[in-house]
Parts: sequence; C-alpha cells; structure tokens
Amino acid sequence: MQRFEFTLKATDGKARLGEITTPRGTIRTPAFMPVGTAATVKAMMPESVASTGADILLGNTYHLMLRPGAERIDRLGGLHKFMNWDKPILTDSGGFQVMSLSGLRKLNEEGVRFKSHIDGSEHHLTPERSMEIQKLLGSDIVMCFDECPALPATEERVAQSMRMSMRWAQRSRDAFGDRPGHALFGIQQGGVTEELRGESAEALKAIGFDGYAIGGLAVGEGQEAMFGVLDYAPDMLPVDRPRYLMGVGKPDDIVGAVKRGVDMMDCVLPSRSGRTGQAFTRHGVVNLKNARHADDPRPLDEGCACPACRNYSRAYLHHVYRSQEMISGMLLTWHNLQYFQDIMAGMRAAIAEGQFDAWEAAFHAGRAEGDIPPL
Amino acid sequence: MQRFEFTLKATDGKARLGEITTPRGTIRTPAFMPVGTAATVKAMMPESVASTGADILLGNTYHLMLRPGAERIDRLGGLHKFMNWDKPILTDSGGFQVMSLSGLRKLNEEGVRFKSHIDGSEHHLTPERSMEIQKLLGSDIVMCFDECPALPATEERVAQSMRMSMRWAQRSRDAFGDRPGHALFGIQQGGVTEELRGESAEALKAIGFDGYAIGGLAVGEGQEAMFGVLDYAPDMLPVDRPRYLMGVGKPDDIVGAVKRGVDMMDCVLPSRSGRTGQAFTRHGVVNLKNARHADDPRPLDEGCACPACRNYSRAYLHHVYRSQEMISGMLLTWHNLQYFQDIMAGMRAAIAEGQFDAWEAAFHAGRAEGDIPPL
Repeated sequence: MQRFEFTLKATDGKARLGEITTPRGTIRTPAFMPVGTAATVKAMMPESVASTGADILLGNTYHLMLRPGAERIDRLGGLHKFMNWDKPILTDSGGFQVMSLSGLRKLNEEGVRFKSHIDGSEHHLTPERSMEIQKLLGSDIVMCFDECPALPATEERVAQSMRMSMRWAQRSRDAFGDRPGHALFGIQQGGVTEELRGESAEALKAIGFDGYAIGGLAVGEGQEAMFGVLDYAPDMLPVDRPRYLMGVGKPDDIVGAVKRGVDMMDCVLPSRSGRTGQAFTRHGVVNLKNARHADDPRPLDEGCACPACRNYSRAYLHHVYRSQEMISGMLLTWHNLQYFQDIMAGMRAAIAEGQFDAWEAAFHAGRAEGDIPPL
Repeated sequence: MQRFEFTLKATDGKARLGEITTPRGTIRTPAFMPVGTAATVKAMMPESVASTGADILLGNTYHLMLRPGAERIDRLGGLHKFMNWDKPILTDSGGFQVMSLSGLRKLNEEGVRFKSHIDGSEHHLTPERSMEIQKLLGSDIVMCFDECPALPATEERVAQSMRMSMRWAQRSRDAFGDRPGHALFGIQQGGVTEELRGESAEALKAIGFDGYAIGGLAVGEGQEAMFGVLDYAPDMLPVDRPRYLMGVGKPDDIVGAVKRGVDMMDCVLPSRSGRTGQAFTRHGVVNLKNARHADDPRPLDEGCACPACRNYSRAYLHHVYRSQEMISGMLLTWHNLQYFQDIMAGMRAAIAEGQFDAWEAAFHAGRAEGDIPPL
C-alpha cells in the first residue's frame, strides 16, 4: 500500500512546494482544503469540488459525531463512501468546535463533557475517543485532540492549556497506534508567545508525528499578530513534514502564510461567503447584493474558468441572490472555491519557478486596483 | 431558419408520440417541462436539467416581469442567455399567477391591475402587454393571456370568464403578429363543462394557433374530474398541433393525461418536493425525512441513473435532509426531474412500439407494490 509521505520539491524563500502521497491520492502543497462540515461542502456536489482542483477535504469530527454519528458512518462504509468523495479527507479532533459551538462544557485533564448544540444530548470527548471517532470516519489525516483558549488570554492560561494539549498529544499518539497509510498530525499551541510556541514544538517533536499543525491562531488575534507568530512558528517544526495552519483564512492570510512556510490550510470562508452573496476575486471582494450589478452583462471575473464566470452575467448573479434562489449559493460557492484553488495553483507554479515574490506583488496589485468600475 | 413545426409520429390508442421542431432544438413529445420560475430551476444547474432529458423549460412571466424585469432581461440578451439555457423555453402569460400570487387585483375587459407580491408595486397586465413581455424574454412558445376562475365556480362564472379569455386570445393573436420560429398557443377554458370546453375550442380554432393548451385544470377539481375533462377535451383540439395540459402534475396525472392525448405538461412538483425531502420513485413517494432511512445503505432507487441514486445511500439522503444541507434539495430535485423524464421516455418508447397499455400497467403495478421494505 502507498505510504503517507511528504516530499519537499522546491523552496522559494520560506515558501515551500511539496507533495503528500496517500493511498487515496496525492495532495499538492501548498494546499487549501475546502470544509465539508456535515459530510458535504455546503451548496456543492463533490465532483464540482474536485473540479476546482481540491485534492483534499476537511471533515468536522464534532458535527459528524453528533449527526449522523461516527459508528453509523463506519457501518455505512466510512465517510468517503458516505459523502461520495474518494480523495483524502482530513478530520479535525472536535476539540475546537466543542469550545466554540456546544453548550455547558466541563473541561478537565481527562477530556471535555458537553451538550450537543443540535439536541442538547450529553457527550464526552477525550483524546482516546477522538482517535476512535476519526478512525471510524476513515479519516486519512487525523488531528490530535487539543484545547485552545480564545485570544486574548493571559499567558498563564495559554501556557497551562498548551501543556495539557501536549499531554493530550501523547495520549492521542498512543491511542492512534500504527495505521499504515493514515497520518496523525500534532498541533502546536502557545498563543502569540514565542517561548510557548517553542516549548510546544519541542514536545510534539519528541513524540513524533506525520505532520504538524499550527493551532490557536485565527481566533481573534488579527492578521498582524498571526503573521508575527508565523514569522517564527513554522521554523520550529520539522522541515521534512507538512505544516498545517488551521482555520485560515482570507486570500491575503493564505498568501502570507505560504510565504512564511505553511503547506496546508482550511477555512469555511469561500463557502460561507458564497452563500451570502460575497465573491472573492483577483480584484478583491465583490458583493453581488449591490444594486450596481443589476444591469451588468459582464462576468464576475473574466479570468476565471468556473461556471459562475463562464456562463452568467453579474446581472444574473445579482438577480438570483436577490431572489434567494439556491443557484446563487451554488454558483458563488463554486466560484470562491475555484478562486482559492487558483491562488494555490498560482503559488505552487511561482515557487517552482522561484518567482514567489513577483507572484505575490501581482496578487496584491490586483487587489489594490479594486473591482472593475460600474458600467 | 427552422420553422416551428409539430410532427405526429405515432399513436397508440389516444396516446401520441410526436416531435416539435424549433430553431432552438427539438422537443420530443410527450414532453414534461421543468419549471424555471425566476430564471432558474430551483436547486439545479441548467446543464443538470438538460442531462435528465428535458428538451424545454417553462419560465413564469409574472415572476420575471416583477424581478428582474422583462426590459432588463431583453437588454441582457434574453432569457436563454440570462439563465444559460439554450434549448426552447415556453413562458406562461402571467394571468394565472396574477390570480394566485398577487394582492389587490382589479380585473376588467382591458386586463388586470395588481400589486407585486414582492414589493407591493402596481402593475397592469393585458393581452398586449403579456405578448410584449414574452417577446422581450425571447420565449420560443408564447401563451395567450387568459383568466381562469378557481374551481368550484358557478357555470355562469366559468362561461363568462372563458368568453373573455377567448376575446383575449384574439387580442393576443393580433398582438403577437408574425414571428417565424416562435409559436403562440391558445388556451382552452370552460372548467369541467363539456359544452363550454367545446365552445372554447371552436373559438380558438377559428383564430388559429400553433398549439393548444388545456387550461383551468389542476386547480382543485381532483384527478377524477380532471380525467373526466381529458376524456373529451383533447379530442376537441386539432390533431396536427401540440396539446399542452398546464400545471400537471403528479406522475399518475401525467400518465393519465398522455393516455388521453396530451403532448406537453409542466409542474413545479418534482422540484418543490425535492426541497422538502420527498422523492418520486417507481415504488411511489419516498419520504427521506423518515427515520427508517437513517441506517439504510441502499440507493433511493436502484434503477435510476441520477447522481442521488448512483452515488449516495438513503442514509446519506436522510442525513443531509435532517441537517438542512443544500445538497439535499440539489440531489432530490435532480432525482425527481430524472424520474419524471424517465416516465416520459418510457411512454414515448411504449407508444412507438404500440405497448402503451402494457407500460401503463407496469407503471401502476410498481407503485402499488410500495417502497422497498425497511432493512
């Protein structure tokens, strides 16, 4: 069987071009992972997600354990079959979303007790149970169970939390066992404190993982603080393993993260924005609900190959948004996912050619121009 | 340019196999027309609608005149380009939906004044304006502007209404003019009274149309009464022109109508039901919200080629319905449209082979069996 392997193919400054091989296919890095929270990337058919160039999806352990349930998905043949996606899937550990979505949490060294946001039922999540659930789902890349405080938080709170997450990382590693073809990623914590990030990285490396995530960012600290951490955090992680920045982000966050040595990212932004009439383009964000598009026969982005841009006018996209038609979310989500994947493809090509800085300058110049003027 | 032409290719009892040629393509009859009310078949990409075998869509004049507006669609290149559908489109006249959807109507010989259900703005619709709007939309098959009372209604009310609709039919014919490649259909009224249906048919034939619709049914009279009318109404219309039964219907309505000599139908049922978890299958209606599907790995209908049936389990369809995910409506609408088109294809093949009765018996037998038993 194909082993889980990461190959670093080129670097340009700190930016890295690589490839992750798995039994379910190859993931080109830098990679953006669309989020398929409840076994669907909202408003998209999985074939359409694949057509944008996505090599891997993210699934949410928290949502799937509550509905339809991990044991049920296992009985039905695993998450890939259930949701008709045969490429790799990364699942998060559930920890972050227990904190952000569920009610009545009780956290201790053992794990976390919480009530479902769907039906109020009680659940217990531990490193061991998270590993079990992610195995039942059939995840290709499994994330350690961790805990992370919302920022700002006191350094003491961040340190305590990080150290517990490191003990949970060891328990996750022990519970995961040996599963050829499947990967377990550790998650660096430590907030915005370099010393704590370093301590966390050392703890994870001592345990040993197939990949390393940078956690606890994109939780309210702002881009400047995030980039401040990314100026040093990726360098603390092994050069020969993929580095995954969790929950990021906006296009310029993604570009800034890749520039600083990040290989993988995920975010709900392209799909969530697509459902609220917002499109990400080379010219920045375009809001299709704006009346200025009502008579505009031009495509959203004449340089984009997605169906929204190839087959429809801005006037149509405005009309279906205003009419609350499902095709509005379908087309704009598709466009946004295409745009995010086009950014990744552009960065991969630029790194291969040693032209990352020039690519980045062009990326920012296009956005600075702003959207095309009204007719 | 290709002319609008109807060719009757075979009959089996009263059931008819035919073909309508138009500059935008051929419509195989009996034909079912999916409804694209607001320039979209809800929850579907137009390519997907075409893939089910639909040769023609219906667009709603009432909705499109209010939003985004007929003049705007004309400026943008017409409805086909606007909604990315290059095959034929039939538009209704707006009359029926003014009656069923708008507020504060005032009806007289001239036409009808009403307030938009969207923003309360005032509008005036007449035979002449309806012809103008349908021309601005670029409709291939234009419907006469008519009026129809909800049933039950007194015979006197039905007769008065029918006679005004016949005067409006003449005004529609005059306003439509000569538009090669485009068709104008007259609409027979007369409720459930054979004499009035006959009077209406004679009036329409005296004017002369490219096709003839049977209107004023499927408005609450029930299947038995509808079939009662269909036992004689199609025979009153010219044999060499297509016959279109408006707003019908459920699968057994459609089969019963074709059996009685109807060539074309339209209905929102497959798409509307798809968005509420209801699937039409060879075994009857299957309600995906039912908990009995939660662990069922079997397809919705193992004989169906749509993506919902090819790629997903009932358990998945149940899960995404319960989770209110958009893919639920997307998949079930696709399935329902595929099933409706499969019925039409089955009837066309059966008529060609002179096997309509056998096909109809098998159709009813499958439905009588009911859905497959729970696991």
